[in-house]
Amino acid sequence: MINRHARRFHSRTAQIRQLSVTVKDCLTHLTQKNLTQTEKDVSVQGWIRSFRKGKNISFLVVNDGSTHESLQAVIRGPQINIEGLSFGTSVRVSGRLLYSIKGTQAVELDTSTVNVIGPASHDYPLQKKYTSAEHLRFNAHLRPRTQFNSSLLRIQSYMLHTLSSFFQTKNAIQVLPPVMTSSDCEGAGETFQISKSEDFFGMKTNLIVSSQLHLEALAMGVGKVWTLVPTFRAERSTTARHLAEFRMLEAELCFTNSLHDVMDITESLIRNLTQGIIQHPDLQFIRSLNAENIEQDVDMQARWDSILGTPWTRIRFSEAVRILETAGASEDFVFSPSMDSGLQAEHEKFLAKYFNGPVFVTNYPAVQKPFYMLPAEDGTVECFDLLVPSMGELCGGSLRDDNLDSLLHKMRIAGMNEGDLTWYTDLRRYGSVPHGGFGLGWERLVGYLCGVNNVREIAAFPRWVNHCVG
Amino acid sequence: MINRHARRFHSRTAQIRQLSVTVKDCLTHLTQKNLTQTEKDVSVQGWIRSFRKGKNISFLVVNDGSTHESLQAVIRGPQINIEGLSFGTSVRVSGRLLYSIKGTQAVELDTSTVNVIGPASHDYPLQKKYTSAEHLRFNAHLRPRTQFNSSLLRIQSYMLHTLSSFFQTKNAIQVLPPVMTSSDCEGAGETFQISKSEDFFGMKTNLIVSSQLHLEALAMGVGKVWTLVPTFRAERSTTARHLAEFRMLEAELCFTNSLHDVMDITESLIRNLTQGIIQHPDLQFIRSLNAENIEQDVDMQARWDSILGTPWTRIRFSEAVRILETAGASEDFVFSPSMDSGLQAEHEKFLAKYFNGPVFVTNYPAVQKPFYMLPAEDGTVECFDLLVPSMGELCGGSLRDDNLDSLLHKMRIAGMNEGDLTWYTDLRRYGSVPHGGFGLGWERLVGYLCGVNNVREIAAFPRWVNHCVG
Repeated sequence: MINRHARRFHSRTAQIRQLSVTVKDCLTHLTQKNLTQTEKDVSVQGWIRSFRKGKNISFLVVNDGSTHESLQAVIRGPQINIEGLSFGTSVRVSGRLLYSIKGTQAVELDTSTVNVIGPASHDYPLQKKYTSAEHLRFNAHLRPRTQFNSSLLRIQSYMLHTLSSFFQTKNAIQVLPPVMTSSDCEGAGETFQISKSEDFFGMKTNLIVSSQLHLEALAMGVGKVWTLVPTFRAERSTTARHLAEFRMLEAELCFTNSLHDVMDITESLIRNLTQGIIQHPDLQFIRSLNAENIEQDVDMQARWDSILGTPWTRIRFSEAVRILETAGASEDFVFSPSMDSGLQAEHEKFLAKYFNGPVFVTNYPAVQKPFYMLPAEDGTVECFDLLVPSMGELCGGSLRDDNLDSLLHKMRIAGMNEGDLTWYTDLRRYGSVPHGGFGLGWERLVGYLCGVNNVREIAAFPRWVNHCVG
Repeated sequence: MINRHARRFHSRTAQIRQLSVTVKDCLTHLTQKNLTQTEKDVSVQGWIRSFRKGKNISFLVVNDGSTHESLQAVIRGPQINIEGLSFGTSVRVSGRLLYSIKGTQAVELDTSTVNVIGPASHDYPLQKKYTSAEHLRFNAHLRPRTQFNSSLLRIQSYMLHTLSSFFQTKNAIQVLPPVMTSSDCEGAGETFQISKSEDFFGMKTNLIVSSQLHLEALAMGVGKVWTLVPTFRAERSTTARHLAEFRMLEAELCFTNSLHDVMDITESLIRNLTQGIIQHPDLQFIRSLNAENIEQDVDMQARWDSILGTPWTRIRFSEAVRILETAGASEDFVFSPSMDSGLQAEHEKFLAKYFNGPVFVTNYPAVQKPFYMLPAEDGTVECFDLLVPSMGELCGGSLRDDNLDSLLHKMRIAGMNEGDLTWYTDLRRYGSVPHGGFGLGWERLVGYLCGVNNVREIAAFPRWVNHCVG
């Protein structure tokens, strides 16, 4: 067939493209030494971070989100229109890149033209001066335009790519489990139900609280799987560590009967993500900030060192309780540590501080944990919680009970509806294998590594009780 | 502090690990030439794909999901227990890896012991003989154990990593937008509402039908963003191309006023993903299968070639209609092509076939498209649909209207509630910039590249009307 329409249209693709040059390009690749004659003249678009007007010379600082750094456009002479250049306004600045003698940056722009693309109305909710984290949370749609939040976005993106590469080298398969489910994973959290879904699906459905059960099914086809999936808890919590919608990083590994395997991969993953970002310029930048939402009392370098240092402590729950009991007199806990109750947040933080870094606490009493965990001989289950200083629990994992009768027995005791989970018990009915996995709160991990103490700063559009804007 | 508990516990990590050797390891890394004495003796776990019992020698074929290939365990002599070795049973086979003289594989296992880990009950829903795709869809939890579905999982995972790398090289930021939203994106699809969310959030919420609006907000902080997010449409469709829950690959790019930029990155991305997987052993394996769910009438190599060949055709909607009108007499369309109605599925398929590969159709009449698209001068909008042979629409994109007044005008005409979208119009109120993006149905793309004609085979746990199992 003759493709003449296409050919005619293609000739139009030779037009000038606007995506080519970013501030990052200007500051890194286009240092003067490498500049060719044609590259020296550039046109960059971005948002105004500051504008200082002088008599003979003005300075316009422009950021386009490609890096935390901004480009300084130097405006000389009266022939350039400088009207409407207020904070937050978007502009196109054109001119010649020059090697900068003064200042901290290698290059600056000798400006020939400035065009306003989009003015920022005078009631722009962000201001150059200090804006509180609380105020920004209620303007989540504009928040990425701050240096702090755009840096967090770039760091997270880098971590996501590291995550993908990590599991790729481990031959673990990234899977995309469902978010709508007819199963109740553990009855632990309050679920969000989907209305009218009974009309649509012929059964009640809700949003997933954990993908673990689905990952178990998928792992039993391809051996090792992982996912980063939205999860939902209708808990009326307003703490700095809880969201109604958050991302859970979950992995499931077949053919293991040692909890150490699961802890090994958890530890290896978090070390890998930490190693990947501690040199990231955005993280160094965040660390240099003096913002209210950053943990100012924590030595971040020491935190990263404790993650990357010696292998993490692994202790049993019973040993943890003994340590807490010994420390109890001097520590003045609100809750007395005991074998019969779980660890309270204050206990978790104490333990991580005691060991001066991440610590796995394993083998909790079975009565404290959900039905699917593998029983050990001493009335405990093969599980762990990973505790980190000043936060407490970051991650939890376990070996799963792969015995059908044992599983059914525990489901009956827990009053669960077997019929809803036939598909899950099928995994034990047909070719069951020993396996285990973990689940890690993504926003908590990112916040922990960045020294940001509220997960609402990490989620792009945070949702919590009475708050779902956007 | 003294860390004696930790040290005592650590000594236990020296125990034997079970995760070390996979079938893939045996077949690739442990070819006999590289075997050291200690590596020759291996223990592998997996599921039985077949068992042939002979008088003096038996053959057990075991797969663990690490690759589409299986390991053949040769069982000699009567001292090895071969009871209970049925299809689907999970086993641990131990023995010595030998260079295989006969057969297609480089190695086989000279078996010393076989242990049944998990028997498969006699009513195991999968069978070695043919199992229909329809039957498997209702056993999605066991489906990954088939060669076909496990191959699809491995291919998808590889594509996901390629995706992450692609955008990393483009300096686009991966973001994690919300799934629960208080906004109505376009009113085009039926939304799933979240029940009792008014109690929890103080406002009505529903599941997201597209992340575009949120991505626009995020892009206006960091320039270029992308995501792969679950999206939800309560459409009572039962076609091979629709799911109630599916993954949408979406990207948004700031600082462009050319639709070609958006088409360029779409084309580049799909070429990149295709290039990445066409040599993948699992894709070659799927191609060799003779399964009902594979498009048998399509030359897959020609399909991939058409993607990787010359730049894709880009035509305007008006030109597409002219071609369709000319072809109409001989093609016998059910619907007459016209400027006043959108393209029907039959038209889309014809156009892609006519151009013998992917084709972008741009500049549809504004009345056919949603409010947020950028108007062109001739009553059209700066948008595209990407059509591919035998499927039709795979992807859509547009430049976004970045003018506040124009946007508000169109929202009023469409009867939309401005108050719900104040956060979105804010993006134009404060420092608006030209931008555009696209959305691509992930399951459709994977199915298209693998020659699988029903997206229910691609989603791990497919949901459609009257079907939400697991």
